Amino acid sequence: MSFRINSVLRQVAAPPIADAQAWVAGRSFPADCPLLDVSQAVPSYAPALALQTFLAEQVLQPTTALYTEIAGLPALRRELAAELARDYAGTITHENIAITAGCNEAFAVTMMALAEPGDEVLLPLPYYFNQQMWLQTLGIKPVYIPFNADNHGTPDIKAIADRITGRTRALVLVTPNNPTGAIYSAEFIEQCFELAKDHGFALVLDETYKDFRDDTGTPPHRLFARADWPEALIHLYSFSKAYALTGYRVGSVTAGTSLQAEIAKLLDCITICAPRIGQLAALFGLRHLDAWRNEKRHIMQARNTVLKNIFATPANGFRLVSSGAYFAYLEHPFSSLSAYDVARHLADEHNLLCLPGTMFGPGQERFLRVAFANLEVEQIVEFGRRLGDVSL
Amino acid sequence: MSFRINSVLRQVAAPPIADAQAWVAGRSFPADCPLLDVSQAVPSYAPALALQTFLAEQVLQPTTALYTEIAGLPALRRELAAELARDYAGTITHENIAITAGCNEAFAVTMMALAEPGDEVLLPLPYYFNQQMWLQTLGIKPVYIPFNADNHGTPDIKAIADRITGRTRALVLVTPNNPTGAIYSAEFIEQCFELAKDHGFALVLDETYKDFRDDTGTPPHRLFARADWPEALIHLYSFSKAYALTGYRVGSVTAGTSLQAEIAKLLDCITICAPRIGQLAALFGLRHLDAWRNEKRHIMQARNTVLKNIFATPANGFRLVSSGAYFAYLEHPFSSLSAYDVARHLADEHNLLCLPGTMFGPGQERFLRVAFANLEVEQIVEFGRRLGDVSL
Repeated sequence: MSFRINSVLRQVAAPPIADAQAWVAGRSFPADCPLLDVSQAVPSYAPALALQTFLAEQVLQPTTALYTEIAGLPALRRELAAELARDYAGTITHENIAITAGCNEAFAVTMMALAEPGDEVLLPLPYYFNQQMWLQTLGIKPVYIPFNADNHGTPDIKAIADRITGRTRALVLVTPNNPTGAIYSAEFIEQCFELAKDHGFALVLDETYKDFRDDTGTPPHRLFARADWPEALIHLYSFSKAYALTGYRVGSVTAGTSLQAEIAKLLDCITICAPRIGQLAALFGLRHLDAWRNEKRHIMQARNTVLKNIFATPANGFRLVSSGAYFAYLEHPFSSLSAYDVARHLADEHNLLCLPGTMFGPGQERFLRVAFANLEVEQIVEFGRRLGDVSL
Repeated sequence: MSFRINSVLRQVAAPPIADAQAWVAGRSFPADCPLLDVSQAVPSYAPALALQTFLAEQVLQPTTALYTEIAGLPALRRELAAELARDYAGTITHENIAITAGCNEAFAVTMMALAEPGDEVLLPLPYYFNQQMWLQTLGIKPVYIPFNADNHGTPDIKAIADRITGRTRALVLVTPNNPTGAIYSAEFIEQCFELAKDHGFALVLDETYKDFRDDTGTPPHRLFARADWPEALIHLYSFSKAYALTGYRVGSVTAGTSLQAEIAKLLDCITICAPRIGQLAALFGLRHLDAWRNEKRHIMQARNTVLKNIFATPANGFRLVSSGAYFAYLEHPFSSLSAYDVARHLADEHNLLCLPGTMFGPGQERFLRVAFANLEVEQIVEFGRRLGDVSL
């Protein structure tokens, strides 16, 4: 007699990116039509050479092989707190910071700390699929906020307010957004904070892509300047994209100290600490790579500009709904076809690997997610050209 | 109005090692009585020089900064499968292996894949605290198996059988054991497998410390040689101790492919993948560091021999209950004092930092856990000498 498997987990969808990558696995591509992979968001460049050189020195230090404190290296927590305090004109200390093994772990522990099975979390559509999968796994009910394609993907504040109940434990906002690329206004984010505070739930703000906003001179919101921010704000971040460190697994949760005490229990149980070498890389980045990070931001902006120009008018019926930071959300023209079938066709016939909107939630049949950040400018032009050839 | 925090999580104990480390934080120690820290298990030596050199080359490769597949690098999965197949004379393929960000994550995802809130997991006393904390967090009921100090810490098979119910989803065995150092016999492990298979639950076998057994020439059990092992066995492992890589966070789960499909969802949500640099380190270890690993095993055996000689008869009333691999479990002589008070006294007055048995579960007031692997032979002698000076 074999053992049972968690019946709730069995209903959770399989990892979408691995599914999509399987469409092209084992295929070879001609030199004149190489695969353009805009499925998983991965920086198209290596980490800074100075960072690589620093890491080559660090791995020779015996201490690099040791655990860090559960919440991460104190120096890294201090440096990140200082950067956030500066950029958001706010009050943040190292005690508000926990370093995690990537931003997914930051989200995972935050949700476990906030909600119990049967509780509700407000999740705007389209969602970042791992967030929905995790809530479902925990038996937390995701309450979807309808997609507002007309407002460049920013949800409607009233639609959020209407869905608050006594079981609401959090509202999740990802800005710049994954998958749509939408960047929410400071006013909208602050309205959400007010709703959260008034109703006694948390605003969980995932700013993984914050360093790729068009204008990093003004803060994305002014919440950290409020003395009461720890009462309703939890901030998630990742070093993966900012410093091209995806494989090193480093992220963070910024929150009040009473929540951090609970999060420490979870981090201890799950990974004990984030990998030290990744933490050292993040610390080096914060201390020495401002200019490099800014340069990459300019590159992303150039890519986004090219993309926007291509789609200034719909290209062969493909319409740009929103774009920003790392992602674009496209509406495809085939109203009788599923997003899955369109994405498969693009992969099979045009060597374009993007993700169907349906991987990001219900009602997304007409959309495709494009991680344009993966492509050089010339490849983005090529991407547009191939879409022009699509006939279905 | 501030947000609520998960009420179940609030009842989970704070991370014990951090608590104990706080007892000595900020203190300085005289040269003639330095701190002997046997709290957290940490190899007392650096990774192999060849491994450090290899990593210094790898961090200069741009691919090192990228994600791997969710289940880990295929080459690493193949190499670990081959080693396990060889050492256990069994049938294990790369499809049975998932690489995790340390063995805690391996345990975390395994429990989530097996059990739902309200289900039961059999956990021998004393337990590895993070395992108990995690079960409690998930609302899974840990059902304790009494401590059998008379049988060198091996639980009684009948005591296990008596506690099986319709909600039992797993039995967790850690061998060599943390915290006691007990090494379970092949016969006992196989009896547990039979119980699990007969009753339709999983035997979760954590062999993090397997490389430090006295005799690695014969397998710890013959379960992997059975064609039906995937029906009741889940095997957890860590590269942390074998290759002195604690800070790199690499471990593994070996299980049947249907369970692995569910575990992949969880790994995707929590860490996406284990850090690539740690995976590369583990792969190098498996391929090139057999001799090095064996040498460290001999060093641990020498340390254990010294420890056993010191406690051949109780030293100042302190009795060695069991020891092996990395840990020793000591009974202290102060029947009217709590384990916590004894451990605090050892830290405060004798600069010995060990953990009270009560961190490992109920009924452990008379015990102390000693991670003797952290100490050189001379330090172990010194450790015994200081215990000889204790008067309470």
